[in-house]
Order: sequence, then structure tokens, then C-alpha cells
Amino acid sequence: MKVSVNGLRRNYRTVAFDRRRNSILLIDQRLLPHQFKVVSIRTYQETAQAIQAMIVRGAGAIGATAAYGLAQGTRAFRGTACRLFLHHVERVYQILKASRPTAVDLVNAMNQVRTAMCRGKTIAEQQTLALAAAEKFADENVEHCRAIGEHGGPLVRDGMRVLTHCNAGWLAFVDIGSASAPLYAAQAKARKFHVFCDETRPRSQGATLTAWELAQQKIPHHIIADSAAGHLMQRGEIDLVLVGSDRTLGRTGEVANKIGTYTKAVLAKRHGIPFYVAIPLSTIDWELKSGFEIPIEERHESEVLGGWGVNKQGRRQYLRVANPDSHARNPGFDVTPPDLITGIITPLGIFRPKELWARRHKLGYPLAND
Amino acid sequence: MKVSVNGLRRNYRTVAFDRRRNSILLIDQRLLPHQFKVVSIRTYQETAQAIQAMIVRGAGAIGATAAYGLAQGTRAFRGTACRLFLHHVERVYQILKASRPTAVDLVNAMNQVRTAMCRGKTIAEQQTLALAAAEKFADENVEHCRAIGEHGGPLVRDGMRVLTHCNAGWLAFVDIGSASAPLYAAQAKARKFHVFCDETRPRSQGATLTAWELAQQKIPHHIIADSAAGHLMQRGEIDLVLVGSDRTLGRTGEVANKIGTYTKAVLAKRHGIPFYVAIPLSTIDWELKSGFEIPIEERHESEVLGGWGVNKQGRRQYLRVANPDSHARNPGFDVTPPDLITGIITPLGIFRPKELWARRHKLGYPLAND
Repeated sequence: MKVSVNGLRRNYRTVAFDRRRNSILLIDQRLLPHQFKVVSIRTYQETAQAIQAMIVRGAGAIGATAAYGLAQGTRAFRGTACRLFLHHVERVYQILKASRPTAVDLVNAMNQVRTAMCRGKTIAEQQTLALAAAEKFADENVEHCRAIGEHGGPLVRDGMRVLTHCNAGWLAFVDIGSASAPLYAAQAKARKFHVFCDETRPRSQGATLTAWELAQQKIPHHIIADSAAGHLMQRGEIDLVLVGSDRTLGRTGEVANKIGTYTKAVLAKRHGIPFYVAIPLSTIDWELKSGFEIPIEERHESEVLGGWGVNKQGRRQYLRVANPDSHARNPGFDVTPPDLITGIITPLGIFRPKELWARRHKLGYPLAND
Repeated sequence: MKVSVNGLRRNYRTVAFDRRRNSILLIDQRLLPHQFKVVSIRTYQETAQAIQAMIVRGAGAIGATAAYGLAQGTRAFRGTACRLFLHHVERVYQILKASRPTAVDLVNAMNQVRTAMCRGKTIAEQQTLALAAAEKFADENVEHCRAIGEHGGPLVRDGMRVLTHCNAGWLAFVDIGSASAPLYAAQAKARKFHVFCDETRPRSQGATLTAWELAQQKIPHHIIADSAAGHLMQRGEIDLVLVGSDRTLGRTGEVANKIGTYTKAVLAKRHGIPFYVAIPLSTIDWELKSGFEIPIEERHESEVLGGWGVNKQGRRQYLRVANPDSHARNPGFDVTPPDLITGIITPLGIFRPKELWARRHKLGYPLAND
């Protein structure tokens, strides 16, 4: 998407690859919205750390970063022994996989790269195929988001007030975003609408990233405390809820997403407000049989006990807010059951959650599983 | 309640009065939990400012402060002309009334003081009666909270996990608190239980004040992001919700309380978790006929766009978190309808919300209204 940096408006992707330097280029999302900076990540270990430290976050962007990371690690191998090469690739895969346990895109993306590599006969061929597969994953991610916008755009009608939670915008993908794609599509049709961004404690991705994205595209919006959405719904001030997903179960239609998503779905149901989840196909998990099997990452308590922001001098800083003697629980995700979801917007159309399984062959269900 | 200050454990009230100096003594709640300090407020104008700036907050504590404030203003009158005195008292009343629009305790408390004053024949007598009435309001507030504990204590059973929102503890009252009273009563019976405190953005009263209170009384607790309660309920980790109220409508059973309370009630209903509201009688509004008539204070957007905390040096500081170009909506309260409330714990027993009106003569309904 276009970003204004030092007065210039340029196009960026959230995740890109520099072949010559074997580096991954990431927009450092920890610095946004106060500073826009692209960092160059030179080794797969650093790539795993970048995912873990949330320099990059969001389902699609993590997927593309892991795909590039696997290609990067693969290309860094300097030997000739096939057995050692395979061992090395497996090691890269496992290190990247461990960086974020809830994100299924990460594994799906790396599996695509690994499958593509198998067709290579030499180490060099496999290295080339790995990067090509990573590039394909990234490009498809962009195309999927564009298609989500085409299908979801008509949901955002003139005069609507749309609630979003966390960030499923272009910073969470390679470009365009999932939950944001229908907004950009509606804007392209000159429709007027207003967005309420949940601030999304404890990491405030709504107040920082989603608000920054909307401001960059000049979409009218207000940030609200996570607790305020229920009140606005009760007063008739929200017409539509649009969120993303970190993992959607193809078998059950359950949706894992940022902590607080489930709460918004329960509220939307009570008020008869449509609740849509926008996802690229790589977010679908065809394996798990129940939402209770989804590993819910418990993040560090310091996120809840305080927060990051900038001081008057513009310096990034952490403040402790909570009582010094107290501790926190910090589950990072929750699971929304299908009965609360009006529709799942995919690149191939909008489906009811329970339809995913019936349409699995259209939606990328791995044939080998049949 | 007892507080440990510099190693000593002493008893404090949230609001007290110094007759000799005509000053109100307030625990400065903006400094907690990082610093414990009692401030002395010398004029009624400063008292109104202290309420507005939230040095003191919470239904009962605001009520007692306003009652003392009216007495303080009344006692500061130095003339002999009755007409000027009445004019002065009215002015003090209006200035204090304007300091927090949603809190009904404030008006109820001042009305008690004003009614009591009328029995005085001279200005001096009225001044004496005003202070006596304010002291009576404060003492009754403490007694009411103690009685809430007696009635609500049995709800908190051994092994329970209790969710709280915002602060309806002793800092929100003159002492003991409303939603916290059943917890202290259960603790006095040596029952073991665990409390989850919603952090309660945007002002974080849960993470700061409630957590501080619980830590001072050694009650096991965790702070959670406001968005996490739904997930914990879904996983069966919450057995009871206990909140306070800033205004409860006697005619309808609707409860106005800190923004986010309504959301917790909707979630509790979905999960079949009992949802109780603890209130002293002064919190009941017998006038309004619908929750939509309750004025919902829209507070400054800076609360949502950032937050206060302490830095590594222990200095209080505000950080901007949100995107610099973005704005926020900041409704301070919401209204929970009676169908979501299991019971209202009052000093006179636990009632279903719809019972309040039938029991109005027992519950302090002003006879003059009949």
C-alpha cells in the first residue's frame, strides 16, 4: 500500500525479499505508528527472532516471513552433502515453526516451500525452488487479499459504522490485508463509511497499526477502548463487525483470532449485527477437530501490567501501570464458535462457517488427506 | 481498611474530614498504586476540582466527598444575611453537582445534607447540621458496605474464581467497598478464592486500584486485559462476576457502571455465570424511567489514546500509544439491562433487579414522591 514517508508517497509491501543479500525486508511494526522503518534481516535465526519479537506479526505476514525465512536458511547452506542439507533444512523449519505457536499460516507457508523444494534434484536446484515457492506464497497472499476485497467490499455500504478488532490490515499480510480489504474496496467505489478500531489491549495493535493504516488511506475512524464496543452496539452505532483470523478450523468453522474477538462476536450476536471474518485460504487448518485443540499462546505478563508508547520527546518507552505486587494472565488468542459468525470472507467467496468443510476441495484442502 | 505504609499497618478511610481546618482528607487515587498519599482539600471549589480530576472516584466516595464539600462550602460562609447564605449554598451545590454528571450518589448525598440543614434556624446551626449530615452520610456508607458484605459473602464459596471490573472496592467508598465487601466477608470466614481483575481501560482502575486493594489484603488475584474475560469464561475459569454501580434505576433495575460492565454481563449470560451488582442504597435512582435517560459522560480522548504509568525511575508519566493522527471516542459508562443481572446485593439483602421497585419503601424511596 502507499505510505507517506518524509512527504513522499511510495508503495511498500509488509514483507519483501532481497535476493542479492539473502535478506528479508520487514516494516518494523513495533515502531509504528510513531516511526516508519524497514529493517533487513540477514539470517534465518534472526528471522525467527523477528517473528517472536513481533517485528512482523499478523497471519499472512508471518506466513510470508516464514516462507522467505525457510528459503533464506536453505540458501545459506554451503555444503554438498545431501544428508547434511536435509538435516539443515529440517533445523531451519523447526526453529521458525517454534517462533509463534498459534499461527497456522507459518506452518502452511513453510510446507508449501518444502513441498516445492522436493522437485529439485540438486541442492542448488532445491535452493532456487525454495525461494521461488516463497515468492509465490507472498504474491498469492496479495492476490488472495485483493479477492477478499472483491467479495467483501459489497458488505460495506454507504453510511455504515464498521467495528474492527486488532489488526488484520495490510501490515498483517504481504499487502492489502484481509479484514481491511473490503474497506479499501468500498473506498474505491467512493462509499462513505466510518470505522471504530478497538484499541486491542494488551499490545494495542488497533490503536497503533489499524489506526495508522486507516489514517494513511484517509478513512474516517475513531479508536475506542475494547470495553466500549458493547455500549456503542447497544446505542445502535455499529452496523458491521469485520475481523481477521490467525487460524480457522476447516472442519468446524471455529475461528482463532486475537484475544477479545470472541467477546465482540458474542456482543454482535446479541445485537443482531453481522459478524464477518476475512481470511486467505492459508489460514484454514484442515487438521484439528475442535477449537479446544488450538494452542493458545500465553504471552508475557508485562504486556498486561503496562504498555509501550512514546513520551513527549517522541522516544519509545514502557510504563508500568499495574499495582507493583500484582501479576497478570495474558492469553493472546481466543476461539469464536461458528454460531456467532455470519460469514467467512475468503478469496473464493463468502461462506457460512459450517460450509467450509463441504467446500473443502475448492478451498485448498490437501488432497493427500483424502 | 488497613494499609501498609513505610512498614506500618494503619487504618484509613478513603474520605475523611478535618473539622478544625474545614478540610477534606482524600487518598489521592491518581497516585495509587505507585504512591500512597493523603491530600488535604481546603475549599469547596478545590473539592469540585478533586472530584473532576478523579483524585477521588467511585460512587460512594464521590458521594461522601460531595456531602463533605457542601458542608465545607456552607461552613466557609462568613456573612449574616440569610438570603446571601442560601444563595451561597445553592452555588456550592451547583458547582459540586457539575463535577461528575453520571454519579447519582453525588446528588443524593448533597440532598441529604441540604434537607438536614433546613432544620437549622440560624446560619451557624445550619452549618453545624450540614457537617453532621455529611458525617452521617459517610458513616452510613461504611455501615452499608459492611451489610453488603454480610449478604453477599455467602456467594463467594471455597475455590471460586471471581471476575471484577473497574474498582468498587473501599477506595470507591468511604471504607470496605461494595463489590469487594463480599470478598472481605468470605476471607474473614477463611474461604479460599481467586480474583481476576479486568484492567479496565482506559483509566486502568482494575489494574491499579482493585489490584492494590487485593494485594494489601493478601487476596490471590491476577490482572487480565478487558478482552480476556470472555476467553476465561469459555474455558470454565470464572464462576462469579461481582461489580459495582454508579447509578441503578429503581424503576427498571438497569445498572449504569464503568464502560465494559455491560459486555461482561452479556458474556456471563452466555456462559450461565452468575452476575451480581453490589450497591449501597444511595446509588439507587428512583426518578429516571429508562437507562437511555442516564447521561453517559464522554471523557477526554487522551485517556484512550495513551495511558498513565510509572517509568523505571518510579516517576508518573503519560505516554501516547495511538497513531498520532487518530482520534478516539471515550464513553465512560454503560448501562446493563435487568435480564443480564442475577441479583443486586444491597445492605438490606439480595434482590432481583425487577424487585427493587416493589420493595421501594424498604429501599429508601423518598416518601415525598408517592
